Amino acid sequence: MIPTDTHDTGTCQRISELLSRIGDKWTLLIVRALGQGPKRFSALRRELGSISQKMLTRTLRNLERDGFVSRTVTPVTPPQVEYALTPMGQELFCPIAALAEWTFAHADAIDAARAAYDARDPAAAHRPA
Amino acid sequence: MIPTDTHDTGTCQRISELLSRIGDKWTLLIVRALGQGPKRFSALRRELGSISQKMLTRTLRNLERDGFVSRTVTPVTPPQVEYALTPMGQELFCPIAALAEWTFAHADAIDAARAAYDARDPAAAHRPA
Repeated sequence: MIPTDTHDTGTCQRISELLSRIGDKWTLLIVRALGQGPKRFSALRRELGSISQKMLTRTLRNLERDGFVSRTVTPVTPPQVEYALTPMGQELFCPIAALAEWTFAHADAIDAARAAYDARDPAAAHRPA
Repeated sequence: MIPTDTHDTGTCQRISELLSRIGDKWTLLIVRALGQGPKRFSALRRELGSISQKMLTRTLRNLERDGFVSRTVTPVTPPQVEYALTPMGQELFCPIAALAEWTFAHADAIDAARAAYDARDPAAAHRPA
């Protein structure tokens, strides 16, 4: 259940903040890619295709800062940098995957609801609540 | 599982779009309030406290357009307008609640991870990936 403590607004603010961070397209793709196992920066970049180096660096850094991804440097020449989900990152993967699965299953229904709504009298969009 | 079809990027884009909409603080609070049963606009507004009339109207309209909330007008004087979760809205409540519960349970761990990250050599923030 969504928590019902006395700090409702603060809690929802917090959840909202985390959802907007996690809900980012690149974050979802990276978390999913690392769900298959640890990967090097170059391998991630190849796998994600259209992501820029800057965006991949920034997204990995945010995930590392939040404690979802670990970054391991092996001092060889050139240094190898490997990224992996932390235990907390692996846990996060489950509720995210549940929501993603739900969204995937209901995408058509949401599209249909939007089309039906938009097909109504456009004046309805300006009605008072 | 997060879907792994051939439209990965498009799917994650879609999930991301939905998460950012659902992840909005007011949306979470409204979906939770309606999870207890149908409510009139004025009751929702009282329950949510600090929300403006304009923001409540806009958020309810988006939820209605996506097919998560129904709006029923009873033609009395003055007209009564009641909002309720649709079956799809009730379904959505479950994965959202799971993610919210997870976030609530891990908020301290995320804060600790951020503090530890920020306490490192600030130069690390500018390292190459």
